[in-house]
Amino acid sequence: MRIGTWHTVGRGAEFCVWAPARQQVEVVLESMPDRPVALARDAQGYWTGVVPEAHPGSFYRYRLDGKTDRPDPASHCQPRGVHEASCVVDHAAFEWQEADWCGIPLESMVMYELHVGTFTAEGTFDAIIPRLHHLKEVGINAIELMPVAQFPGERNWGYDGVYPYAAQWSYGGPTGLKRLVNAAHATGMAVILDVVYNHLGPEGNYLWDFGPYFTDRYRTPWGPAVNFDGPESDHVREYFLQNALLWFREYHIDALRVDAVHAIYDRSATPFLMELSRATEVYAASSGRRHLLIAESNLNDSVVIRPREQFGFGFDAQWSDDLHHALHTILTGELDGYYADFGKPEQLRQCLRRGAVYAGEYSQFRRRRHGNSPDGRPARQFVVFSQNHDQIGNRMLGERLSKLVSFEAAKLAAALVLFSPYVPLLFMGEEYAEETPFPFFVSHGDPELVEAVRRGRREEFLTFSWAGEPPDPQSPDTFASAILQWERKEGGRHAQMLSFYRELLRLRREVPALANMEKTHMSVDWLKEESVLRMERWAEGSRIMALFHLRGGSIELPAPPDTWAVLLDSSDSRWGGPSSAPPVSVGPEHHLSLSGHTAILAERT
Amino acid sequence: MRIGTWHTVGRGAEFCVWAPARQQVEVVLESMPDRPVALARDAQGYWTGVVPEAHPGSFYRYRLDGKTDRPDPASHCQPRGVHEASCVVDHAAFEWQEADWCGIPLESMVMYELHVGTFTAEGTFDAIIPRLHHLKEVGINAIELMPVAQFPGERNWGYDGVYPYAAQWSYGGPTGLKRLVNAAHATGMAVILDVVYNHLGPEGNYLWDFGPYFTDRYRTPWGPAVNFDGPESDHVREYFLQNALLWFREYHIDALRVDAVHAIYDRSATPFLMELSRATEVYAASSGRRHLLIAESNLNDSVVIRPREQFGFGFDAQWSDDLHHALHTILTGELDGYYADFGKPEQLRQCLRRGAVYAGEYSQFRRRRHGNSPDGRPARQFVVFSQNHDQIGNRMLGERLSKLVSFEAAKLAAALVLFSPYVPLLFMGEEYAEETPFPFFVSHGDPELVEAVRRGRREEFLTFSWAGEPPDPQSPDTFASAILQWERKEGGRHAQMLSFYRELLRLRREVPALANMEKTHMSVDWLKEESVLRMERWAEGSRIMALFHLRGGSIELPAPPDTWAVLLDSSDSRWGGPSSAPPVSVGPEHHLSLSGHTAILAERT
Repeated sequence: MRIGTWHTVGRGAEFCVWAPARQQVEVVLESMPDRPVALARDAQGYWTGVVPEAHPGSFYRYRLDGKTDRPDPASHCQPRGVHEASCVVDHAAFEWQEADWCGIPLESMVMYELHVGTFTAEGTFDAIIPRLHHLKEVGINAIELMPVAQFPGERNWGYDGVYPYAAQWSYGGPTGLKRLVNAAHATGMAVILDVVYNHLGPEGNYLWDFGPYFTDRYRTPWGPAVNFDGPESDHVREYFLQNALLWFREYHIDALRVDAVHAIYDRSATPFLMELSRATEVYAASSGRRHLLIAESNLNDSVVIRPREQFGFGFDAQWSDDLHHALHTILTGELDGYYADFGKPEQLRQCLRRGAVYAGEYSQFRRRRHGNSPDGRPARQFVVFSQNHDQIGNRMLGERLSKLVSFEAAKLAAALVLFSPYVPLLFMGEEYAEETPFPFFVSHGDPELVEAVRRGRREEFLTFSWAGEPPDPQSPDTFASAILQWERKEGGRHAQMLSFYRELLRLRREVPALANMEKTHMSVDWLKEESVLRMERWAEGSRIMALFHLRGGSIELPAPPDTWAVLLDSSDSRWGGPSSAPPVSVGPEHHLSLSGHTAILAERT
Repeated sequence: MRIGTWHTVGRGAEFCVWAPARQQVEVVLESMPDRPVALARDAQGYWTGVVPEAHPGSFYRYRLDGKTDRPDPASHCQPRGVHEASCVVDHAAFEWQEADWCGIPLESMVMYELHVGTFTAEGTFDAIIPRLHHLKEVGINAIELMPVAQFPGERNWGYDGVYPYAAQWSYGGPTGLKRLVNAAHATGMAVILDVVYNHLGPEGNYLWDFGPYFTDRYRTPWGPAVNFDGPESDHVREYFLQNALLWFREYHIDALRVDAVHAIYDRSATPFLMELSRATEVYAASSGRRHLLIAESNLNDSVVIRPREQFGFGFDAQWSDDLHHALHTILTGELDGYYADFGKPEQLRQCLRRGAVYAGEYSQFRRRRHGNSPDGRPARQFVVFSQNHDQIGNRMLGERLSKLVSFEAAKLAAALVLFSPYVPLLFMGEEYAEETPFPFFVSHGDPELVEAVRRGRREEFLTFSWAGEPPDPQSPDTFASAILQWERKEGGRHAQMLSFYRELLRLRREVPALANMEKTHMSVDWLKEESVLRMERWAEGSRIMALFHLRGGSIELPAPPDTWAVLLDSSDSRWGGPSSAPPVSVGPEHHLSLSGHTAILAERT
């Protein structure tokens, strides 16, 4: 039972849609409005049929019970937006040029999250392609696209998508996305796609007319929860399972980043997320390619990334917001909202050791104990970052870290993330200290909804210590303000930051103590009254010591023996360090003079 | 932090109540209404203090913010009902006479569920004591009390309790319950208590005034869900954890049967039920007694009974409704409501083999796949029954199985349950084929609530094929109709059934193939077009074959070799079998003639 519309040359298109409570379902082609084609219902409520006249590019709707015309819930293409007809796509027509592509393992991935609409001035998949070389050259080998499922209008972060199977038309639609993946693979880069399975957006969601996709048994912050465990939920699951496989099979997507799994409520004995990982594994085995699942989870529950044999969901990895928060609060001093749970140096040390701060401890923000032990989960299962779309965009003004802290502190953040044993993720532009903000933006069509979003955005920050008002999310200017200014990377601070990131990533690749996460060891401790974090990492024949001076400024430390040499010094003028101060020096008196924020030493072998 | 009110001789009573949002909490003793005693608040919102004038028997209320007087949420005693003052109890005063009692292991337990109010005409804990000898003599070694937490009025199944810490006053209160446990232990019987942690009853619940015990994030069929994973839930958990330990410590309860764990919604990384099993284990280790947790669960999810090391909740056992349903539907032909999922002979065989019918199969009633594999869970973790309060009382008229099927079929049901490898549970009176129904009854004080319950009860059965109306749940006559008629057991069919149960339980105890569940083997198959179920069980030096002729009547079967002898024949006139027919005979032509419903053969050794 292949959900959706599938074209076969010489045969027209095959239609399949689930509408269990309907008495009649017909396909109405725009080209023959007076000749609806009746579909046949099976026992489970799937309606299927072949329409010889349907060709790639044909516009169609489903007519429900002879009266209600609706776009296809599994539409692959919505050229006229979320309220209009769906369009037949011929997936077989695309010519792939990456026959032997089999993916990049998590252990060596360096991820780069980007928003298609604001990554370039053009805001398309195609416009990304010329930039891939730059990313590759910096040391990035996986781009992670924020959600591309068709959303209302042309400006949206992507979490308001209402056609999970359709690649956003204004980004370039299905073929544009394929061209991007094709080019990325040709460059040796993987493509991760952010998918939203916990809710659908507030405008243009016609799934209600087809079946019980949603439930009121649970609540999400963004609307009704998806029905993953109630009556008929087997078919709702099937809809999302097939969606995941669609991206793998037809778009050659390497990995899915599954949005907010904590908002997927599912009490069943075999949870949807477990079935998703099983289906992904089965598909990967059949395709011979590597396909990964990465969860965004605020549960701090090892169930997400435990193997299914250990009764886990079997995800390959999950985001570690904890490391971000622990680092961000120390660098910025901010303690608003959920940052209230962080800010303590010990948390940063703890998180670097185990991938999580909260593993059962009391959370002030949640007003309850939070999390369980991540012990036993390998480092490759945690994705870490000092910036991402949420941590930037959920701020009232959407400021990047580089706008909040000094240039030297921003370099420290980069180094700490990239020298950690976890899988690093950068947010677009971070590598050259881009200054454009990433504010929240939408382009809804419903005036009431627009007003509600504006109001919600204003109210969200009332309890924060920030002055002012958030920019209007509906305004095109807000969107425009987020577009990267690529010319910046060519000079000044930006170019210096870029070469710093390049060097960090080179070391991460080339130094054995950093290169292979599963075979290295690590110790982390605080020196000088919790002002300097010392991280040592070692492997067979390789040992490094990273010193992070969180407060910055000159400081004297007990020096390691003379067998150690400086590998990287953030205060070096090459990357815009304070030229007046001497670089790190290992003194004759066994004192180490750290003049900047970050120094990496390596033991001579 | 010991929640509740605790009396110490010579010191008065110590009070402790959680009321985090209150500005002031005072104890108002009835004996000194004008002198409220202020309690002191700690950082977590617990209010504590000592009141020297409070003695066992003192009535008191908490005064909240100087104006609202409320009974104690952790009251140990509510002599005047759910709306009136709480009463101080001195737990130390009771003299226990079972110093070396350490409990009965699940492997050898035979449970007997009883409702205190209708088990005897008196309806008290004390009135149960003289009956213990009868139960012991039948072969029962554990009584399971339906919930005794104080409920509104004097007639209630117990699931409307609103004082989880208070033993129902009309049953005999705290001391009555202790006398019963004391007597049971003296007789060598364990006491299991049904506790309800998923909701509180609809009348007399004043917990709302104290703290966020409830949440609207989830729904239960019986009202707001308990807040086990939201803000402040650590303290809500503590309230129920201490409740469990109260029953163990002060009442010497052997095991808790935790009601409807599927209605305990808890998304946390360390679920409440896992903490409950850990706390129980720790307490059992310290007390040196065996304390067990048994779940009522409709999740068919092995997580409930998996050890915590395997990321399970760590419960010792759970009810297997599936076996009941599989057996009941075949015997009665009923397929209403949730019975729609059953009725197939193969399900009965499957369930006897693994403890569950649904382990991922599609459920027609739930309209989705249901359950996961129970593989690896030992037989002692499944509690089985052919009757219980729910399966009788959820019927419109509350008829017992013995009223629905023939006397011979009722014997078959008993034999099938007791010869299964699982832990058997009987419902009070089942052992002598009691005829009184067990209809739903309440004695609420709120007229609107009474009407709502009546209406709900009527509406519940509208879609069923049963004619007529349910008896009025509020009527004392409905309650009275449920009271056991003990004199019945002395004669006729009742006495015959009683001796049959006695013999079944004797065999279960004495035949090695039946006695030790973990060391026996079993095979189950259907003969004669799924009319005869053959269950073989064997252990070192012992082998039995049980033949259950589900349709009843005379049937010829291929006989086992002459080395087999009849151990029990349900058609024997000793237990009212059809005297006209010959008993089971192993014929010379290697044919076995089964004239009744059930025959147990044993291999001669």
